[in-house]
This record gives sequence, C-alpha cells and structure tokens, in this order.
Amino acid sequence: MQSSYFTGVTTSNGVMQHDFTVGEVTGALWSSKRAECAPLVLMGHGGGNHKKSPAMLGRAQRLVVDGGFHVACIDAPGHGDRPRTAHDEQEIAALREALETGEPVGPIVVRYNAHLAERAVPEWRAALDFLQGVEWVGDEDPVGYFGLNMGTAIGVPLTAVEPRIKAAVFGLHWPEALAEYARQITVPIEYTLQWDDEHIPRESGLALFDAFASEEKTLHANSGGHKELPRFESDSAVRFFVRQLVRPSIPQPDLVW
Amino acid sequence: MQSSYFTGVTTSNGVMQHDFTVGEVTGALWSSKRAECAPLVLMGHGGGNHKKSPAMLGRAQRLVVDGGFHVACIDAPGHGDRPRTAHDEQEIAALREALETGEPVGPIVVRYNAHLAERAVPEWRAALDFLQGVEWVGDEDPVGYFGLNMGTAIGVPLTAVEPRIKAAVFGLHWPEALAEYARQITVPIEYTLQWDDEHIPRESGLALFDAFASEEKTLHANSGGHKELPRFESDSAVRFFVRQLVRPSIPQPDLVW
Repeated sequence: MQSSYFTGVTTSNGVMQHDFTVGEVTGALWSSKRAECAPLVLMGHGGGNHKKSPAMLGRAQRLVVDGGFHVACIDAPGHGDRPRTAHDEQEIAALREALETGEPVGPIVVRYNAHLAERAVPEWRAALDFLQGVEWVGDEDPVGYFGLNMGTAIGVPLTAVEPRIKAAVFGLHWPEALAEYARQITVPIEYTLQWDDEHIPRESGLALFDAFASEEKTLHANSGGHKELPRFESDSAVRFFVRQLVRPSIPQPDLVW
Repeated sequence: MQSSYFTGVTTSNGVMQHDFTVGEVTGALWSSKRAECAPLVLMGHGGGNHKKSPAMLGRAQRLVVDGGFHVACIDAPGHGDRPRTAHDEQEIAALREALETGEPVGPIVVRYNAHLAERAVPEWRAALDFLQGVEWVGDEDPVGYFGLNMGTAIGVPLTAVEPRIKAAVFGLHWPEALAEYARQITVPIEYTLQWDDEHIPRESGLALFDAFASEEKTLHANSGGHKELPRFESDSAVRFFVRQLVRPSIPQPDLVW
C-alpha cells in the first residue's frame, strides 16, 4: 500500500488547491470552496511542463468555476517536483538536438511519451483510488480526462484501461503509439488538432481521431501551427464535460436543427 | 428599384418576427423586443426547406436571445413562399429519383445548388440593402452569415463577393462548385462536417474546409451520418458570432493554454 496524503492547502479566486502525494507522485486537487460532490476531471499536462503550469491552472479554474468539477493533475514521471532518470535526460537531450537542427521531433516524442505513459498509467490509477477516497470527492460521480500533447500520450492508454473514465478530451499527438489504444476506447471524446501543425502531419492527426471507437466523437481543427491552439478550445472542453458528465441525460430542445 | 416592405409582425418568447418582401423575395427578420442596434446574422436555409422551418426558428431564437443579434432569413428561389420554375421541378424530380434508386445525390445537389446560388446571391445583396435601411438594424454593425447544406452552397459565393459579411458558419457540402469561391474568402469561418456522412465523402468535406483562404478558421467534425449533426453545434455557432462580431477585440485571458 502506497502512502497517500495531503501536503498543503491554499485558496485563490474561490478555488481551493490541495497538494497531495501518492507514493512518489506529486499532485494537486482543485475544488470549489463549497466542496460539494461533483464529477472529477483529471488533467494531464504537456511535455516539459508540470501540474501547476499556467495552462493547468487556467483550465482548473475554468473547470471548477464554470463547470463545477473537482479537478486533479499529477506530475508526469521526470516532470515538476519529480526527479529525472538518466533515460529522461537522454531523451530530453535528443529532443532538444532535433529542435535545434530542424530534424523531425515526431519519432523522439512518440517513443519517449510512450515510455512515460507506461510509467504514468499505473500512477494515475493509484492517484484516482486516492482521490475517490477523499470525502468531498467520493466515488459515485463519473470521471473525465483532459490532456493534450503528452497529456494525450498518457491519457489515451489510461482511458483504454480505466473504466472509471467516462469522457475525455485529447489532442495534438501522433497515431503511431496511440491508435491501437484509441481503438479500445468507446467513451465520448473531443479531439483537437492544428490544421497547419509543423510537427504533426495533418493526415496523422486525422488518423488518430479516426481510430477512436467512440460512437460519439468530435474533432476540432483550427488553423495555425502546433502552439497556436485557440484559447476558446478550453471553454469548449468545459462544455463537453458538462454535457457528458453533469447532464448527459437531459433531453435537448426540439427546434434547433 | 425593387419594392421592399414589411408585411407583418408577431412576437414569440420575447423575439419579434417581422415578415418582409424585397421584390419577389420573401423573408423574415427576428429581433429582440428591445430592438437595439446589434450585428445582423443572415441565415441560409437547407434544400427543400424554408425561412421559417424549425431549424431556422430554433437558430434565430438562440442568436437573438443568447447572442443579442438581429437575424434574417430569405426563402431561396423555388422554396417557401416562392414559386418553382419548370427547371426547379426537373431537378427536384432528379434528386428524388436518385434518393430512391440509391444513386449518388452529390452531382445533382452540386449542380442544382450552384444554379440556385446564381439566382440567390443578388437576392441576398438586395435583401441586405433593405435590412440595413431598417432603423433598428442600421448599417454600422458587422454582418454574419450562417448556412449549412444548401445554405452553404449559396452562402459561400455570397460571402466571396459581399464585403459586408465579416464572419460565416458553413458546412455539409461538396467542394466541386464552391472551392473556387472559398479561396476568395478571408473572413473567419467555422465549418461543420459529419465524419460518417453517407452522401459527402470525408475527403471532399476536408478539401472544402482546406480551400478557405481565411487566416482564422475552425473545423468541427462530428461522428454520425449526414442528418445527425449534433444540436450543440448551433450553440457553437452563436458563440462564434459573438467572438467575431460582438467583441472581436477583447483580449483573451493569459492563463489558459
């Protein structure tokens, strides 16, 4: 049994942030001050980033305030408050070199992220066990997953094996290591890609979206390069989770389409 | 000079509906009861439909109530309150036969809709002249266009030549007669297609989206067949027009992605 506990709490803009540790994994849980039972959304951060990066804090704020969710993020292996292995250092150096010399980064990212996913998937499942044991989170509400870039590389294999995850937002990755897992996923998904991505070929992004076995899936493709994802996509993700996790069974009005 | 005038007014759920006629063209204008100046969104209805079909009434309601827009729709040639020509009857018969025998409808729809667009584009421009002369609409706010299916077949050539249209939502059509016009369009667009469309090949929909010269464009592709467009896409269209026409210059918050 891993040792799991809270390590601190702060409050900002009406959102409580509880830091926690599950074994060697560091994480944060965000909740409304009211702290009532609500679905939990797990967020996977991007490569080179961490659980409290600006993107994660911004999304957590929106999910808690606009969607009423509990939100959690854990540091991926070798990220944030967690130490890097020699293998991590090696792969990061290879990635930096490719970016500097203009070589394609795809093969390195695909390979390194697949390695990280093998380590991260059991960590997420243990973190979810811990989080569902928290009194004000509970285990009765459905769980969502929201992660782009490396957050998708970890989230797709996680969602393929974790039946507690009932809806997911993914995006911005290659199909090579993920399509096989995507074919095992049947929960509703929203997938984001950049139409002019300089790293991920358009056909690759479309192929990964196509691979999901989900009956209900939506692709959002925006003009612009890899790092130019429009900010309104974060609002879209919040609405997706509200539709899927909070009120999936409310009938829609008749007179629309 | 064409004779243009209002023919009646009704109010429902806080939305005023003014019927109007511009030459031989019949239309409707929806406005908030408050009737203050606001951007105008033109709606193009689908083939075989008309200006007050349930889809048009539903979208008008959302655009007026949720977005604060003025909204107008005119009957396409041979649709709604307008007479059919012998040519219209011929093409509709050809389309019915193709649907019954299982022949591809694409070539007929593309050809017939291109013919209707030639007639409808000048009609829309005259209607827009009339609408901008209406005291509570005015000509100082930007104009949007929202039309799927045949509404796209008419709206793409219209937007290509009409500089008053500053943003548009299109979708669900073939590129053959439209890609050339799309390459002349530079205003922001949102384009919708169905990933499993039984009439429009996936590659065709993606090719039309790709053809738009707009720096800012978004593709929404949803799982399901031609007629299974999810209703939440109408809310997405309202938000798109709010972003583009009502507050295009409000800076976005920093901490999101």
